[in-house]
Parts: sequence; structure tokens; C-alpha cells
Amino acid sequence: MDKNRRNWIKAGASAAVGSMLMGQNLSQAQTANNGQQALVVTPLPGKIGMRLATARLGNSSVSTVIVVLDDGRVVDLKSEAQRQNMTLGFDASSMLALVASGNAGFAQVKAVVDRAAQQSGLPNVSQTTLMSPIPRPDRNIYCVGWNYLDHFEEGKNARADKAVQKLPDHPVFFTKATHTMNGPFDPIPHDITNSNTTDWEAELAVVIGQRGRNIPEDKAMDYVFGYAAYNDTTSREVQQKRHGGQWFKGKSLDGHGPMGPWIVTAAGVQLDDVRVICRVNGVEKQNASYKQMYFKIPRIIAELSRGMTLEPGDIIATGTPSGVGFARTPPEFLKPGDLLETEITGVGIIRNPIRSEV
Amino acid sequence: MDKNRRNWIKAGASAAVGSMLMGQNLSQAQTANNGQQALVVTPLPGKIGMRLATARLGNSSVSTVIVVLDDGRVVDLKSEAQRQNMTLGFDASSMLALVASGNAGFAQVKAVVDRAAQQSGLPNVSQTTLMSPIPRPDRNIYCVGWNYLDHFEEGKNARADKAVQKLPDHPVFFTKATHTMNGPFDPIPHDITNSNTTDWEAELAVVIGQRGRNIPEDKAMDYVFGYAAYNDTTSREVQQKRHGGQWFKGKSLDGHGPMGPWIVTAAGVQLDDVRVICRVNGVEKQNASYKQMYFKIPRIIAELSRGMTLEPGDIIATGTPSGVGFARTPPEFLKPGDLLETEITGVGIIRNPIRSEV
Repeated sequence: MDKNRRNWIKAGASAAVGSMLMGQNLSQAQTANNGQQALVVTPLPGKIGMRLATARLGNSSVSTVIVVLDDGRVVDLKSEAQRQNMTLGFDASSMLALVASGNAGFAQVKAVVDRAAQQSGLPNVSQTTLMSPIPRPDRNIYCVGWNYLDHFEEGKNARADKAVQKLPDHPVFFTKATHTMNGPFDPIPHDITNSNTTDWEAELAVVIGQRGRNIPEDKAMDYVFGYAAYNDTTSREVQQKRHGGQWFKGKSLDGHGPMGPWIVTAAGVQLDDVRVICRVNGVEKQNASYKQMYFKIPRIIAELSRGMTLEPGDIIATGTPSGVGFARTPPEFLKPGDLLETEITGVGIIRNPIRSEV
Repeated sequence: MDKNRRNWIKAGASAAVGSMLMGQNLSQAQTANNGQQALVVTPLPGKIGMRLATARLGNSSVSTVIVVLDDGRVVDLKSEAQRQNMTLGFDASSMLALVASGNAGFAQVKAVVDRAAQQSGLPNVSQTTLMSPIPRPDRNIYCVGWNYLDHFEEGKNARADKAVQKLPDHPVFFTKATHTMNGPFDPIPHDITNSNTTDWEAELAVVIGQRGRNIPEDKAMDYVFGYAAYNDTTSREVQQKRHGGQWFKGKSLDGHGPMGPWIVTAAGVQLDDVRVICRVNGVEKQNASYKQMYFKIPRIIAELSRGMTLEPGDIIATGTPSGVGFARTPPEFLKPGDLLETEITGVGIIRNPIRSEV
């Protein structure tokens, strides 16, 4: 791992924990973004949420699921369960297995973590290499388009398809390929020969916790396992113009979907307090509240699951607010060397450098 | 399994082997479709192709990979390898594992099959329950839209988005959710409360054989493992109108993507001889040649893999010719009780009843 990446991880992880604990105080969170903020730790709301990450510990080449405590220490579920002579009902090296294990598995996680937290000598999150919480999703990432009114409005004149002038009565759904998945501090490849219109889209990602089809809107929140920060990084020209107006391919270049730094379980997040923020090289580009979301999460889950089964570990990126690059005057796009920062307040921050790669 | 289903399997499997062996003689193939044609078996072209299926044998609840011989007998790879004291380099219960095993695995398959074919007592394909060759894909099914000129033209006036009047310079790509995957003779669920505009789209499916990104067009055919019949069954109104013009959701209802009856490995298929045929209740609705395909398979693979990694076992549905229901005058849609039949000449026939399910 190169030195820069290590620094990003350290700064990102510290900043994320810091800003999470700062609540909605954005000026403090932004200070934290610069990596200057000392790691101040206060509990998640109600102390009932949990940060679940996928990480490599020390020099290990194998990833495993860890729990990041409020004080930045981490519990390696697999080795801790072994130490405690506890047989887990799921493969603790796999977040998908943990999510699928349901309430029984989650109760085991809590038991292991509660005991582990008592001991000294736990490593700090800065000693781990955080990966995407779900490094290899079982299927494409579900995405919602045009889900903030202001983002829909800003694109009206800029986007290719002028026919779309009215926000649809139902959410717009598309998918991103599985290889878009990227770690919270890993570089996003940028191939200038393929696209020079790489754009940012900060989003709140929802992780589904249990199987369901035709999920009623008023039961939908029971199907949410947790939340993460996500960037639906987009090759704008490929999305809008190259492939006949279907967005899939321009949304699906390898590494164009960083997620993390961890999943905060549903109970730990107050949605109405969530802000979705994007910064490029430290300059804020997007900043909106969950309250501005047009189709809220229950509606998204109900509509997406209509006739289509959702599974534990499925990821739904819930749409981006205004402030994306292509709708600016003049348009702005990401270029190699840029640092893309995506924050979901109360959840965490991810930081991804753009790296030239042909 | 109900009696009807068993009959479909028997008729479908027999007819598929029959028509495959009839080559391009459509009148004979059509006779075979009615299940009247005796099972006449002649080898795949050049005797170098192989039919690989996923099936349950007898009353087993577990599926495994079988090879269907030219005479309709089947070789159960796993048990045959055991009988021959051969250790396979892959999990023979998984088509994805077989495909990923590459040339080494495939050489083992050939060795096992060649020896097994010598013995008597092999079961017939009619004694198996054929499933989708890849029952649980690792990611969404890739699809190409508007890939036959006549299908593009027929939709011009019927489709929702009148802005699209010119075929794009690049293929249109979208995906279907993993739960669309359905067996070659299994019912397609039809929920009238969700959609009453279920339409057929017979397609040639390509199965990718090795990992690749930025695959050059002139090397693309090296990445093809094989072919299958596929129906990109579509909820037309959901696809075109309900979700803002992105096709994903209307293409992604559970069970709306039957595939099979097996994969014929690439060497066994002469693409220029392939016809893509759809029948509903025995009435031909679509019938076109691979030669009429606008973006041919090498171009599709090159464009799809541009910046996006393809993996062994990935499935690409290559687009449907004219004759779909919604573009007819008056429009026609599938309804419960209908029998949807999809044939790829030289590959096989799948038959899926439409079944009411709310």
C-alpha cells in the first residue's frame, strides 16, 4: 500500500469517527475532514447502533468483519468469537453472511462485542485497511435517479434527453455493475481514453437486511439493515449520450462506486438528521438533507420490491442532491489527482482520490 | 412437480434435441415444437460442441451439472468423475465453477464425458428436471436493446419515448435483476395487479468464459464460453412509462428471464446459421437471423467491457428482433395460460407457461 493511501485511510477514518460524533455541526465536521480534528468520540444516538466494517487487519491479505467502537477501537469478530469460545452462526469473514444471519446472528455480534469492549489491547481502526463493507455484492447495486427535486431541476437544461421535463410519479431505478464497488479510501480509476466526464454523486446507501418481495411501504423500514456513505460516480457522457439514453453503462465503470467507511446499523441513524455532502479537493459541491429526498426510503423499497425480490445485503443508492459537476456553469468533472469526499453525517466519510489508469 | 410441467419438459427437451439436429430446416423444427417429432439425433456441427445443463436428477432436490449427449443420454459430471476416480478441479454441482475453471476444467469435462459415453445405463434427459444452466448468476444479466433494425423501427411509433428516432452509434445496455432468472420449462409469474403488459423478447444469450476488461473486438470471441436460448420477458408499461424511461425495473420482475435448455459451447454453434424464434401458443411471433443483428457479438463484448470487467459465467442477452407484442396492431400481451416458446436454432428450445400469481 502506498503512503498516500495509508494517509487517506488514517485521515478518513479519524475524520469520519470525529464528524459522526460532532452530530450536525458542519463547521466542526469540515475541520475534521482536513484531518486536523483530534479524534473526539461520543456514542451513536441511543447507543444502539453499531458500525460494521470489512477490513484487513495489520498486514493480513484476508479481509474480515470488524466492529468499530465509539472510541475508535475495533473488534475482529472472528478472532474474538474464537477467543471467547463462541461459535458464530455465520461466516464472520463475510458481511453478506452476517447480514443474512438475521436477528440471531446480530445478537451474537452484540454479545461478542460487548465482552470484547471490556478488554484492553484492541487495535485502533487506523491500524486496519478499511474496504467496502460489502466488497463483492451478490448482484448489481440498485440506484434511484432524480430523487432530490433540486437535482432534477438543475439537470433540465444540461441533460441529453430534453423530453424529460416532469419528475416521474414513481422512482427512477437503474443499476451499477458489481465491479463498480470500491473501498472507502481507494482510488477511482480514470481512463481519459474512455471518458473525460467523470462526475460525483454523493448518496446515502441503504443495505437491505432481509428477503422480501412486494414489501408494503409501512413495513419497509423493517427491511433496512443499515446505512453507509456512497458515491454513485458517473461517466456523464457515457451515461447520457453513448448508449441510447439507458444509464447503466455510464454508471458502471470499474471502481466507480465507493462505499463505506462502514455500515451503521439502522437503529444508529436518525434519518431526518442526515445530510448528504460531497466535497472535491475540500470544496463543498453538494449538501442536502434527507428531508429533501423526494421518494423516501420506505417508498423506494416498496416500489423496488414490487414483483422483484430483495435479498439481505442488497444495496440501494438512494439518489443524489443538486450540485453535480455536469450541471454547473461551466461544467466541472473529476480529473486525476482530485480528492473526492463523500459524507453522510451520522454515518461517516469516505475519501477517494482520482487516479489515471488506462 | 405437476404433470403439465413434466410434459413440457419432456416435449421441450425432445423437441430441442430434435430441432437442433434438424439444422436449419424450420418446417421440421416446427413439427418438433409440437412435440410430435420423434427424437432424431445427429451430432452438433463438427462434433466439438457440448451441451451443458444444470439439472436435478430423478427425485433429487439438489442440482448438478450434466452433459447432454447427441443421443439424449446425460452424463452426471460429479458422480461420473467419482466413478472414474477422477478428481475434478472445480465443483461439478456449479455451472459457474465449471465455466470459471477454464480450459483445464473443460478438458476434464471432455475426458469424463468421453469415457462415460461408452457405457450403457446412462439416464435420458427426459428423466431429469432441467433448470436454468446458471440458476443463480453472480450479477445482473447484461442486455442489449434495439439490436435488430426491424425491432427498432417497429417500436418507433409504439414506444413511450418519441425522442429516440435514430439508432444509437453504440449498443444500448441495461440489466435484468438476478431473480429474473428462470428455468427453461418453468412458469413465468404474472401478477395482473402489477402489470398487464407482459411481452416476449426471444434472444440469443451469450455466456462469457473468461475475465476481461477493454476486450478488443478482434479478440472478443475468445471470451465466449457458449450460447443459450433466452427470453427477455418484459413488463412493457413498467419498462417504458412507470420509472422515468429507465428500463431496468420493467425488465426485472422475478422469473421474467427464462434461459436454457442448456449452454451449447461456442465451438458447437455456427452463428450465421442461428435463427431467433418466438412462438406464443404455437403461433410464430418472431423469427430472425443472427445475420440481421445490428451490433454483432464481438462489438457487444468490446463495448460492454470498455472500462467494465466481465467475468466467467456472465450472461449477455443480445437483443430481440421484431415481432414483439406491444408494437403489434392491436398490441398483444402474454396472459395466464399462454405458452411462451423461445428457440435458438442449433442451440435449443425453452417453453414457459405464463401463470397467474399475485
